[in-house]
Amino acid sequence: MKLNEFQLIEKIRKKIPRRLQGDIGIGDDAAVFDGHSGKWLLTADIITDRIDFHYAKTKPEDVGRKALAINLSDIAAMGGVPVACVVSLGLPRMVSSRWVERFYAGLSALASRYDTLCVGGDISASRVLFISVALLGKVRRGQIIKRAGCRIGDVIGVTGRLGGSIRGRHVSFQPRVREAQFLTGRFRPTAMIDLSDGLFQDLGHLLNRSYVSAEIDLSRIPISKTARIMSKNDRKSALRHALTDGEDFELLFTISSRRQAALSRAWKKKFPDVPLTWLGKIRKGKPQVRWMDQGKPIRLRWKRKGYAHF
Amino acid sequence: MKLNEFQLIEKIRKKIPRRLQGDIGIGDDAAVFDGHSGKWLLTADIITDRIDFHYAKTKPEDVGRKALAINLSDIAAMGGVPVACVVSLGLPRMVSSRWVERFYAGLSALASRYDTLCVGGDISASRVLFISVALLGKVRRGQIIKRAGCRIGDVIGVTGRLGGSIRGRHVSFQPRVREAQFLTGRFRPTAMIDLSDGLFQDLGHLLNRSYVSAEIDLSRIPISKTARIMSKNDRKSALRHALTDGEDFELLFTISSRRQAALSRAWKKKFPDVPLTWLGKIRKGKPQVRWMDQGKPIRLRWKRKGYAHF
Repeated sequence: MKLNEFQLIEKIRKKIPRRLQGDIGIGDDAAVFDGHSGKWLLTADIITDRIDFHYAKTKPEDVGRKALAINLSDIAAMGGVPVACVVSLGLPRMVSSRWVERFYAGLSALASRYDTLCVGGDISASRVLFISVALLGKVRRGQIIKRAGCRIGDVIGVTGRLGGSIRGRHVSFQPRVREAQFLTGRFRPTAMIDLSDGLFQDLGHLLNRSYVSAEIDLSRIPISKTARIMSKNDRKSALRHALTDGEDFELLFTISSRRQAALSRAWKKKFPDVPLTWLGKIRKGKPQVRWMDQGKPIRLRWKRKGYAHF
Repeated sequence: MKLNEFQLIEKIRKKIPRRLQGDIGIGDDAAVFDGHSGKWLLTADIITDRIDFHYAKTKPEDVGRKALAINLSDIAAMGGVPVACVVSLGLPRMVSSRWVERFYAGLSALASRYDTLCVGGDISASRVLFISVALLGKVRRGQIIKRAGCRIGDVIGVTGRLGGSIRGRHVSFQPRVREAQFLTGRFRPTAMIDLSDGLFQDLGHLLNRSYVSAEIDLSRIPISKTARIMSKNDRKSALRHALTDGEDFELLFTISSRRQAALSRAWKKKFPDVPLTWLGKIRKGKPQVRWMDQGKPIRLRWKRKGYAHF
């Protein structure tokens, strides 16, 4: 770094709109903002150079955006509204202060879109570039949507199209904050999760936590265009990409089948550009998936290695 | 790691007392806990292997303890009460799951002492071992103590003894949570900071933020025993250690001189084992320190290089 930490923080402070900085602005021991009674949510996610982005390739604005977006996605998946975040930055010498400024510009543009305060954090020297954002959210009392909530007979829905996120969508994705708030406020899903490890694993998390099984119609899986393109150039099918690629950051949820039709109608009006797909149903029995193809059970043929949760 | 991330989280969950895990326990997309209206504080701090601790030398319990303690110190310095934390862990392959369990045991023992929820976080593969803890605190309305608050004529107080923290106290220190709450609730300091960069720099932060100068009596600086021992083995004076060594994590504050005597008396009764020392006074004028020795101004003789804030 060409600047010392204090000078860098000064530059960051100028980069973040004052209204997003909380009561006293960035630069004290902790950030200050107004609280509300009720339930609160707190989450944190790390992204690391060469694992979640590439310093040499990814635009710094996109890195900043992603660092916050993955946390927004977590708060959204629990039915919460984002409130305030803090950013921890581990910076190797190679990283310029310009990079850090552009990183914060990307982060605070997204924070602004979702009225999220960006109240400070910490910068530390490090041999590896990493970022950890912690995000506080709030939730109206009783409206928390957990993983453990699937009920037998519920239908299983998913937003968006899946797979191939590595080709760019893993940084450019729009966290489903508004969609999740709409679902939570008007239709009360019984359980919800955001897809970070791929449908295959994340559905497993819902089932394990709820201790139920599921029947999924493979022909209904919404496959992204990118997954189709990738499957032409590698040995994986487009379906496999859609089920196992990570970082879709779509919402996977279960809801009473009585609400399915009304939700479908309301969704099309409210979010005409975001597909909502019904994949199957929650069944009784121990946590596992019955994969179906047009009404008949089939076996997924790829190796299960590495997927501990099915 | 011998275990996958999910198995490791399972182990961590068992390590943290259930009552510290919030409403639904660790393992969902975000943690849930009850909120209160009023002012909230949010802070985050990073510690990194070979900078803030040594993987090969520091006990994992001590690393966990320190990762939280430095954040408790920040919340304390603003007059806050800690509420809940999330932990981000960057783990190289060399780190065993046993290390992570012991890390969490140390962290949650300290969390328990200060009734702080330890509500989850994130684990990521990394080439460097790092930890970022984000801590949420609350504050009774109007009782936030900022850096920018020193008033002309205030006296300057500091807790504990300074210098030589590197010899062990940088991991074993007791964050001044109770002391800060006592000060805030009963005596209302005008400004406060926790000493992380050393008195020399951190006093600078108070003065810069408040835009005032200070007069400090060098003969009053409380020098730690370790600083005296270190000065025998290196070329720095014990005073220099006390002024410039980092990570004391003591409280530096200013308060109306009218309250000085009453605070001194009350402090001795309440915290007989923690020294409280009066160092000097806040004066008008641009942010700088007049160093005094028994009533006469003197110049500090060591190089100023690296200390941008005086």
